[in-house]
Amino acid sequence: MDQGQVIKRVQEHLPQTLETLKEYVRLPTVSAQHSAIPETVAFVVAMMEKLGGVTRVLDDLGGNPVIYGFFPAGSKGDPGKTLLFYNHYDVQPPEPFDEWETPPFEPAVKDGKLFARGVADNKGDLVARLTAIQLLQESEDGLPCNVKFMVEGEEEIGSPNLEPYLRKYQELFSADACIWEFGSKDEAERISMVAGIKGMAYLELTCEGAEIDMHSSIGAYVDNAAWRLVQALATMKNKENEILVEGFYDGILEPSERERQVVRNLPFDTEAISRLYGLKRPLITEALGVDPREAMVFHPTMTICGIESGYTGEGAKTVLPKRAKAKVDCRLVPGQDPEHILACVKSHLLKHGFDDISVKMWNGQKAYRSDYDHPFVSHVMETARHVYGHEPIVAPNSAGTGPMYAFGEALRLPIVSTGVGWSGSKVHAPNESIRLQDFEQGIVHMVLMLSGFAQAMDAHLHRSQSGNG
Amino acid sequence: MDQGQVIKRVQEHLPQTLETLKEYVRLPTVSAQHSAIPETVAFVVAMMEKLGGVTRVLDDLGGNPVIYGFFPAGSKGDPGKTLLFYNHYDVQPPEPFDEWETPPFEPAVKDGKLFARGVADNKGDLVARLTAIQLLQESEDGLPCNVKFMVEGEEEIGSPNLEPYLRKYQELFSADACIWEFGSKDEAERISMVAGIKGMAYLELTCEGAEIDMHSSIGAYVDNAAWRLVQALATMKNKENEILVEGFYDGILEPSERERQVVRNLPFDTEAISRLYGLKRPLITEALGVDPREAMVFHPTMTICGIESGYTGEGAKTVLPKRAKAKVDCRLVPGQDPEHILACVKSHLLKHGFDDISVKMWNGQKAYRSDYDHPFVSHVMETARHVYGHEPIVAPNSAGTGPMYAFGEALRLPIVSTGVGWSGSKVHAPNESIRLQDFEQGIVHMVLMLSGFAQAMDAHLHRSQSGNG
Repeated sequence: MDQGQVIKRVQEHLPQTLETLKEYVRLPTVSAQHSAIPETVAFVVAMMEKLGGVTRVLDDLGGNPVIYGFFPAGSKGDPGKTLLFYNHYDVQPPEPFDEWETPPFEPAVKDGKLFARGVADNKGDLVARLTAIQLLQESEDGLPCNVKFMVEGEEEIGSPNLEPYLRKYQELFSADACIWEFGSKDEAERISMVAGIKGMAYLELTCEGAEIDMHSSIGAYVDNAAWRLVQALATMKNKENEILVEGFYDGILEPSERERQVVRNLPFDTEAISRLYGLKRPLITEALGVDPREAMVFHPTMTICGIESGYTGEGAKTVLPKRAKAKVDCRLVPGQDPEHILACVKSHLLKHGFDDISVKMWNGQKAYRSDYDHPFVSHVMETARHVYGHEPIVAPNSAGTGPMYAFGEALRLPIVSTGVGWSGSKVHAPNESIRLQDFEQGIVHMVLMLSGFAQAMDAHLHRSQSGNG
Repeated sequence: MDQGQVIKRVQEHLPQTLETLKEYVRLPTVSAQHSAIPETVAFVVAMMEKLGGVTRVLDDLGGNPVIYGFFPAGSKGDPGKTLLFYNHYDVQPPEPFDEWETPPFEPAVKDGKLFARGVADNKGDLVARLTAIQLLQESEDGLPCNVKFMVEGEEEIGSPNLEPYLRKYQELFSADACIWEFGSKDEAERISMVAGIKGMAYLELTCEGAEIDMHSSIGAYVDNAAWRLVQALATMKNKENEILVEGFYDGILEPSERERQVVRNLPFDTEAISRLYGLKRPLITEALGVDPREAMVFHPTMTICGIESGYTGEGAKTVLPKRAKAKVDCRLVPGQDPEHILACVKSHLLKHGFDDISVKMWNGQKAYRSDYDHPFVSHVMETARHVYGHEPIVAPNSAGTGPMYAFGEALRLPIVSTGVGWSGSKVHAPNESIRLQDFEQGIVHMVLMLSGFAQAMDAHLHRSQSGNG
């Protein structure tokens, strides 16, 4: 099929494809809340089997089940080449409900967009990829290579159980290259991909001051868990966004000159970002004179994702709270180790006299960067150039996180992430959406990418052989 | 009636009295949540009218209605003397629900205690006082003086509308002395009263960072409302409990030598307090080498009553919150002005670069101290000595707050606060309770106090006259 034919077929298929996607996002698969896991697993398996895929539901190592899917190359395809798709079927919690314009688990089409929790992150991408397979299967030449899927159900809580599955089922998931779960167009409508991801140490700090909530009048002599937590947090990062935890920056691998150059050339539109989120203040990088692109790719972060203590309802309640909690998300870069970060935060708190604050890690993951010069990276970029009509943006790693390090370590393959989101997708926030046009283009891109995949990998093989010869 | 007779009558009345109290605390009169106001007003009016009280429901000046009640002296009593009771019919919010052992608005008797939201603060006291009137009415000599009630419905949100009512209805509420709403036994079972109260500036600080919640990965370059609020709060009070807001201590009136002496002799059992609340750390006064009794009576406070931002549910949600809020309760001492405190906090935030944090005052009240040497204070102490069998504790002012300043200014009378709570009453917290025995003693105390009231005030009159002569 040429690109024109592919576009035509995608559009013919769209009504049916959208029905499938709507049905998928109706499932409230919130892993943090243990919700709708079995029915979602059954739904994903059914989608794959409907297209003749071979599936296995792996649940022998704990956690939510991991779904394996396999689609063999057609008779005219190359059975020696395998592309692996990584997706996840779980979604972020939908809260706060009252800020959704339509209910999070009732998909609504409006102004060419489909709104629902998980539609951009990451259920839309799975449906797009399965549709690409279907279209290739229905084409004259059939599926041009083997395709495998790994669809897990704990990405939004940090994939705590994924690594053992990858190690035990290394052969089952073995492939020549991997397309990662996500991607989107940026503020200037450029398709934006990454060849790596940041890691994470998602911490929860808890200060216990007493066994019961007290009347606030005794604040004259009784210590306050909320004040303690506030004072402790204030020692960990200053107003200028500098992380003050000793050892936090240990082991960071300096990026290569090529990577630095790529990052310097990434587009970044401060105005557009500010408008998009309705920011009330300048970017925090401005105070430090830092290039926000470098911060995005090369700098670790420490973000308060949530803090809670005492009475937070309407009006005044005069309570001295017994407990205070904060959720702190540290995004890590290659070379940083989440376990070391946890240890550093613990020892920082002790050093500053906060022995009443305990720290727990909800999610620890290392960062990963693929070999930026691998022909697979070039192939994904080349096909994107055709589909999107402009030079794609490929960052050495994303600002976001995923369990890519475990894949890279276990399967030894290049990984590129691309997907069907847009700059206003609001992933992890209320009113998450994709645009139907991006969804169509994403399917077309996957059809073209799969069509030329075996050949591109052959070129790589030849290059490697001649390099070794 | 002698004390023995009074005790007997109180016990005979108890089943009926308890039924009335249970019915009263079943009403979920949460002023912060605008709940059950009209039905509670009707209930209080009915209780008074059942005893022949004359009532008026005042609602011409806004806010929840203020209830006036009047019980004239009996034929053998002194119609020239009037005692005013101040009570409130509203209660604190019951949250967090899951920490109540029995539902907050379903009164439960267990181990000699009655559990319900508002039973100690302050519905139990109103029923005790009305019962005392009933017993005196039923006695041979009848009610020995006039008794007035002011029962308001916004005490738990800081009595924002009380002052205009006091000014407009100054004559209606005029009296010779006032018994204030609350009181309890302390950790060592001593009846504990106050002749004044602290004031309050209850502030809410809000930082708005963006118009929508964002994905936490962009914390590399986007500023964070929760971090801003934490950093701002940390500039307002240090780890050692010192308030750092410039001007906060302005105007504080130094206590008299008599007041200092009384405070130095107040009982204070650090061990017992620590056990009662299950404190995890030493008293915060220890770090500063401050006497906790002095802190309790003479020092202003700044307490975080609540803080909230972003995701606070189970597990990890990687969100960069658009907004953060904190509720901060400052308890004030005589001479401090809540409006000035508000202005100081605002200018402190600006001075420290936090122009993105707004401050609102939910509740502003000045502190008040009665004349400690007034014979009414002595009369209340003397009758307490008889009922409780030990020397009562009377602090120059409480650590807690109420609209006493407005009473003192408008009605010019001495005020003593006493009530039926105990050290484990958990006012403002889950599992609020009173002990039935304290409830009985409180009724007996009010009977004796009213019996000798006219005579005590006459002695005062004579003292004043001879003083003037």
